[in-house]
Amino acid sequence: MTITLAVDCMGGDHGPAVTVPAVLEFLRHDHACAAILVGRESALTPLLRHTEEALAGRWSIQHASEVVDMHDPVATALRVKKDSSLRVMADLVKEGRADGAVSAGNTGALMAVSRFVLKTLPGIDRPAIATALPTLRGHSYVLDLGANVDCEPEHLLQFGIMGAMLAAALEHKERPTVGLLNIGEEDIKGNETVKRAAELLKESGLNFIGNVEGDGIYMGAADVIVCDGFVGNVALKTSEGLARMISTFLREEFARNPLTRLAGLAALPVLKAFKTRVDPRRYNGASLLGLKGVVVKSHGSADGFAFRHALQQAAEAARQKLPEKIAARMASVPIAPTLCD
Amino acid sequence: MTITLAVDCMGGDHGPAVTVPAVLEFLRHDHACAAILVGRESALTPLLRHTEEALAGRWSIQHASEVVDMHDPVATALRVKKDSSLRVMADLVKEGRADGAVSAGNTGALMAVSRFVLKTLPGIDRPAIATALPTLRGHSYVLDLGANVDCEPEHLLQFGIMGAMLAAALEHKERPTVGLLNIGEEDIKGNETVKRAAELLKESGLNFIGNVEGDGIYMGAADVIVCDGFVGNVALKTSEGLARMISTFLREEFARNPLTRLAGLAALPVLKAFKTRVDPRRYNGASLLGLKGVVVKSHGSADGFAFRHALQQAAEAARQKLPEKIAARMASVPIAPTLCD
Repeated sequence: MTITLAVDCMGGDHGPAVTVPAVLEFLRHDHACAAILVGRESALTPLLRHTEEALAGRWSIQHASEVVDMHDPVATALRVKKDSSLRVMADLVKEGRADGAVSAGNTGALMAVSRFVLKTLPGIDRPAIATALPTLRGHSYVLDLGANVDCEPEHLLQFGIMGAMLAAALEHKERPTVGLLNIGEEDIKGNETVKRAAELLKESGLNFIGNVEGDGIYMGAADVIVCDGFVGNVALKTSEGLARMISTFLREEFARNPLTRLAGLAALPVLKAFKTRVDPRRYNGASLLGLKGVVVKSHGSADGFAFRHALQQAAEAARQKLPEKIAARMASVPIAPTLCD
Repeated sequence: MTITLAVDCMGGDHGPAVTVPAVLEFLRHDHACAAILVGRESALTPLLRHTEEALAGRWSIQHASEVVDMHDPVATALRVKKDSSLRVMADLVKEGRADGAVSAGNTGALMAVSRFVLKTLPGIDRPAIATALPTLRGHSYVLDLGANVDCEPEHLLQFGIMGAMLAAALEHKERPTVGLLNIGEEDIKGNETVKRAAELLKESGLNFIGNVEGDGIYMGAADVIVCDGFVGNVALKTSEGLARMISTFLREEFARNPLTRLAGLAALPVLKAFKTRVDPRRYNGASLLGLKGVVVKSHGSADGFAFRHALQQAAEAARQKLPEKIAARMASVPIAPTLCD
């Protein structure tokens, strides 16, 4: 079965110059996929002119006259720019013409438009954003990363279920372990919300391993780490800042004098191997979970390599029918009816 | 004026074997300080037998028959072990026999005992824990790190004031910048608590620069970063985990084969210089702020070098009369009276 992705080619810092070649490269590698490139026809056509015959029939252009800017308020994306590449992309999934969607655009607008067009799955109050992070043992999925700043225990339970389904789909793990981010491993730690969430997760039938502290994320303490969007966003951004500081310091130390520069030259292959191992581009692609459709958000600054990774992730989630699996799992868990909005 | 520190020599993973030599080394370097070594006399005396004459009169032993274990519940520290080194240490500050206290013991117990014995400053609802972290530009102070898991906006304001006073005292900065940890830089971001806290901080007279995202901590976005204890604890522990993962990966890459090991040898001086720059031991010592007395918590696993850093920090805070300065600053800020507990 061919998986067709709708790709918002206008989003991100670089727009079509990066997204279009990335889509073609993706199609060259994944022969079971097709792509609908969404955006201004005049911007996309020139970049597709010399595409090889072998890809013919596996890509098409869907014109969209508008673009949601990085700084557009959510209301503009929802109510004003109704022919934006973001909106047209979501519509393609809604209409069943695409199996999944990928965009490097404005996160808030992507979430709002996706939620408005696709709707949430039964039993899911709020969609969440999840990404993979490298760990000592491989990688883990962390959610939520900023979609939900105030969470009830039931939301954290839903994140746990969605995260476990995501890890199962993308990692082919049957019973991924789920941990709850907290400020101590003991049951008595944390605020009332996480304490109650821990109880719900224990009763959920998930492979729940209990509380995980911040360092557990990178130690690989669990396949899935659940937290509210405020905490998850801070953890992710703090990590980005620390990684940037460490790499700046390393560069500075190696650039200090001719001798250290020589040492840097000797160490270059090793430093490169290290860099590859933690390359954030390999982790590009955050899944918007809980929607009736597969939607993946690429980092705005993604280059072609990184954007392709987001495309691969969307294709795999669609192939595994992730939304259907989440819905099925939700149906088996009793959820307080008062929470449904 | 001599600053006298009361030191809980029994706390931490290593106990007197590390703390006693660290205190002596501290006294050798800071001639304007004295120390009261608190703990079991039989454990301390042997380690002090060969202390040089030059230090005579600047140290003494205060016997305490009990020790609070790392796993003792707070209630035990408060109500059962009334002759613990932790308690006796706090009593020495209370009685005015010491100007500050340092312990590497159980954080929860240290906070509870300090609060019980010393009491909080007028206007402070809850003490907070603050530490310095390295940044691209120097270092920043982050608080709270776990003492308060549920915070009202007024608490975040109090943290901002205490953090600014701490940075002023230890860094000799007149108007340290204060940032509020949030999930976006715009005013509309975040939950209701941080939005209201931003308003209070704006009106506080502090050098408030607005919201700071997680990466801003290590970019040096502000001298002081304010957050609730849950978020701060997760940010700190996540950083510890990431740093550990990165150093493990680097070590593994350099150990891969004889060639990479050779490159590692060449790069050794550079890697050492780098390591010194981010050495967490240089940042050891978290301040318990908002108490009527100076209390510094050392990491439990601190070695002598790290423990000495905590002692230096306590001495400087005492010399600068940090609690008095916080009290004076609090008196000039209107605080909702309903919040005082």
